[in-house]
Amino acid sequence: MGLAIPAAAVPVVQSAVPQTRLTPTVIAELNAAVGQAQVLIEPMARLLHSRGMSYVDMMQRRAADTSCVPDAVVQPASHDEVLAVLGICVEHQIAVVPYGGGTSVVGGVTRPAGTVGIVISLERLREMIDLDEVSGLVRVQPGMTGPVLERLLDARGFTLGHLPQSWERATIGGYAATRSAGQASSGYGRIDDMIEAVTLATPVGTWSAGQVPASAAGPNLLQLAVGSEGVFGVITEITLRVRRTPKARHYEGAMAPSFAAGVAACRELAQLDLTGAVVRLSDEAETVATLAISGPTGARRKIFDRYLSVRGVSEGALLILGWEEHSTALLDARRDAAWGVLKKFGVVSIGRGVGASWEHGRYSGPYLRDTLLDDGYLVETFETAGAWVDLLNLHEVAKGAALGALTRQGHTPYVMTHLSHVYETGASLYFTVIDRGGPDSITRWISAKKVISAALQPARGTITHHHAIGRDHEPWLAAEIGPIGMGLLQALKAELDPTGIMNPGVFTGFGT
Amino acid sequence: MGLAIPAAAVPVVQSAVPQTRLTPTVIAELNAAVGQAQVLIEPMARLLHSRGMSYVDMMQRRAADTSCVPDAVVQPASHDEVLAVLGICVEHQIAVVPYGGGTSVVGGVTRPAGTVGIVISLERLREMIDLDEVSGLVRVQPGMTGPVLERLLDARGFTLGHLPQSWERATIGGYAATRSAGQASSGYGRIDDMIEAVTLATPVGTWSAGQVPASAAGPNLLQLAVGSEGVFGVITEITLRVRRTPKARHYEGAMAPSFAAGVAACRELAQLDLTGAVVRLSDEAETVATLAISGPTGARRKIFDRYLSVRGVSEGALLILGWEEHSTALLDARRDAAWGVLKKFGVVSIGRGVGASWEHGRYSGPYLRDTLLDDGYLVETFETAGAWVDLLNLHEVAKGAALGALTRQGHTPYVMTHLSHVYETGASLYFTVIDRGGPDSITRWISAKKVISAALQPARGTITHHHAIGRDHEPWLAAEIGPIGMGLLQALKAELDPTGIMNPGVFTGFGT
Repeated sequence: MGLAIPAAAVPVVQSAVPQTRLTPTVIAELNAAVGQAQVLIEPMARLLHSRGMSYVDMMQRRAADTSCVPDAVVQPASHDEVLAVLGICVEHQIAVVPYGGGTSVVGGVTRPAGTVGIVISLERLREMIDLDEVSGLVRVQPGMTGPVLERLLDARGFTLGHLPQSWERATIGGYAATRSAGQASSGYGRIDDMIEAVTLATPVGTWSAGQVPASAAGPNLLQLAVGSEGVFGVITEITLRVRRTPKARHYEGAMAPSFAAGVAACRELAQLDLTGAVVRLSDEAETVATLAISGPTGARRKIFDRYLSVRGVSEGALLILGWEEHSTALLDARRDAAWGVLKKFGVVSIGRGVGASWEHGRYSGPYLRDTLLDDGYLVETFETAGAWVDLLNLHEVAKGAALGALTRQGHTPYVMTHLSHVYETGASLYFTVIDRGGPDSITRWISAKKVISAALQPARGTITHHHAIGRDHEPWLAAEIGPIGMGLLQALKAELDPTGIMNPGVFTGFGT
Repeated sequence: MGLAIPAAAVPVVQSAVPQTRLTPTVIAELNAAVGQAQVLIEPMARLLHSRGMSYVDMMQRRAADTSCVPDAVVQPASHDEVLAVLGICVEHQIAVVPYGGGTSVVGGVTRPAGTVGIVISLERLREMIDLDEVSGLVRVQPGMTGPVLERLLDARGFTLGHLPQSWERATIGGYAATRSAGQASSGYGRIDDMIEAVTLATPVGTWSAGQVPASAAGPNLLQLAVGSEGVFGVITEITLRVRRTPKARHYEGAMAPSFAAGVAACRELAQLDLTGAVVRLSDEAETVATLAISGPTGARRKIFDRYLSVRGVSEGALLILGWEEHSTALLDARRDAAWGVLKKFGVVSIGRGVGASWEHGRYSGPYLRDTLLDDGYLVETFETAGAWVDLLNLHEVAKGAALGALTRQGHTPYVMTHLSHVYETGASLYFTVIDRGGPDSITRWISAKKVISAALQPARGTITHHHAIGRDHEPWLAAEIGPIGMGLLQALKAELDPTGIMNPGVFTGFGT
């Protein structure tokens, strides 16, 4: 993968963090609303809440950049305290960035430099409020993370089954605000499918949306709150559908003769209702990398390679299948039917080892990225989704855009892809780009990101399947939802946040 | 069921239909937009498009009421023609009611008397535009009915699987506009789950929403178009997910010891992912009526009754299960697992006869109602949905409200219920009320409907699970979605229909 240029992190000098611009009056009002100990003014607390986790965020952080540091981090402990803080911010025209796990990779928590603004941290709103075991509904506060929720649910025989790669740090409120999808979304659904109700604190008051289990009472306003990215208000409570812990699990690896054959097989599984919890297909490039990192080694690798060669899938595409069912009998029946389909497409089993290995490392991507950044690489991901009929072309177009934009002076970056989140009508595509770093790597990536983003919509791909819009995708939102769609967002914004304090810059330039 | 008071239908005298109030200028403009033959001014055409199919609509029609007759019925043949007609109506401040199959039972196509207004009939927009067999996506015009679509799909090996009781007459555009649910929605999903994109002609231009197969690009604006009930514009194109025609089908009947036991069994099926395409549970009252109409007769009935008695389900609750799968093996596996659950709740099989009988008569309800109306009965339905934890109480409360409101002078109406549309977190409840008619039956029903509607929300039921809001449910919408929800609908309305011409009176009194 070429020469690595180490980019040593620069330590931040505390005195370099800008002083807060909040007036003593505002600070006193905030203190009164949430308690003085919960209005954090000291530099490090503000610095830690200044950015998300995109490549640019990481590099700016390593460069000791302080341009996005908020003027305070406020930690309310209740819905009413959030409302009170918003009231103060409306009165004094202070921008608000809601902040959960801080794992946005699209600039969703990266406040634009220049404006006076605070972060509302959801750190202290992280309780499970109620678990209705009869209906299978859990009510939680937004600051709870996935592992905590899963532990509480598991103790009572339930699971949410929402497992994004950011699972260890991301919050439930963040899932809801960004319409996230997890690694098991082929079986458990996107967060959109799981959320049955939400409550938001908005600048104009409390807004609750959602009716369990379903309703035809006008348009589904719940779906405006889901994906609202802090632009309409702060999500303070979420009601989610939970499922009983599956009694039978089986994770396994398989190899398709090619990415195209694998895509065809995955489509068939999806359209015959034979997808398990996890369906993840790597393209040939990602297959090579994955097997290098977590496949068999030494003599076992030689046997493995010979096995693939005999089966005609030597340069194939790795497929991970995760089955989770409520009985072994049903798991076997579904898995048998699925394998009947897979064999028709030349897919070959490679057993449980690779599946277990993938499952073991399913949250390790971000750590691996940290290591690569330490070694001076440019590492970033982007993602899209499209209809089955468009999917191979979308893969080619997006990969081509990334390669075209980053290739230079005879050096080609490494671009690898996997398909996950399989739907009946299409699938998502997730790309990882690894390139040489260097002093110009931020501007180089920003420029490449523009080329890639502009290529998606003409190829009928969405600008984002599960990372959200944030500030980074804002220029391409209008192309996807059209001028009337943009007008509707603006009308909703004007209704819920008339003074434009909420997460300005996200979705579009409306607001402060 | 007590004494029936025949209410003979009164023939309409054509001359009693009010003259159109459209000016010659407006008529000339409409003629220019869609062709003179498509601007229907004659009394009968206007009369036929003046109402839906609620009990009140039916009785007013039988009473030769002409108060809701529109001033013209306009039949555009393209999206652009719809836009042109809307432009004329904006200019001259003429109300517009979009009209598909005319099967609304909530006043969705019943124009308020007094306002000058036209009906836009979707009669001529009824083509299948495209079927993408790879992605499983069909694009249709809004005026197509379910049977036509299913015939076209079946010829190519696909099915939509959306089967509301109004299937024979309702249109796909109507499904989308009202967020309908079909009889097979436990397996195929609500229409909300099936729609992947829509295009509307609105007073401010063309609005397209939806991204296949999924997106996280801000809130899901598609879900504002779905359920918009003609208030934001006219739906002119719908993209729907279709499925391959199932290879294995099995419809059967069963008897639960009681409605409560049946509800518990259905909950277990839903939460263990063991629901078939159809799951329909009648309460004890509906079970008696259903068996009387379509159960065994004569000597076979005696044997049947003895069988039920021996099994302990004599006064039980009828359960219809419809299985549709892509292979017999999977159908058997799922059905076996389901019966393993059902037996734990004392549910007893009664074989395929009743299932087949129900399937045969699944669209016969409206015809039976016509016969009962001819015989002078008051017959109407209402529906709601709630979480499992609330469901039995919701059933009692709603049934009690209907009985309480209609019982008088020692006469008790017949109220029967079924649970259908089974979700993981809850289910819908569908009530049928049969009462003596008589000259005051309209006012008596309107008054009872108010009592029933007011009882639902406090019992945590929705005002409507699949019939929509229309004009009849409008007074109870605010209680369900709150003042901020109502404000959002108004903001959206102001953005898309600033002069308020679209279906005024639906959702709320905004507009003309």
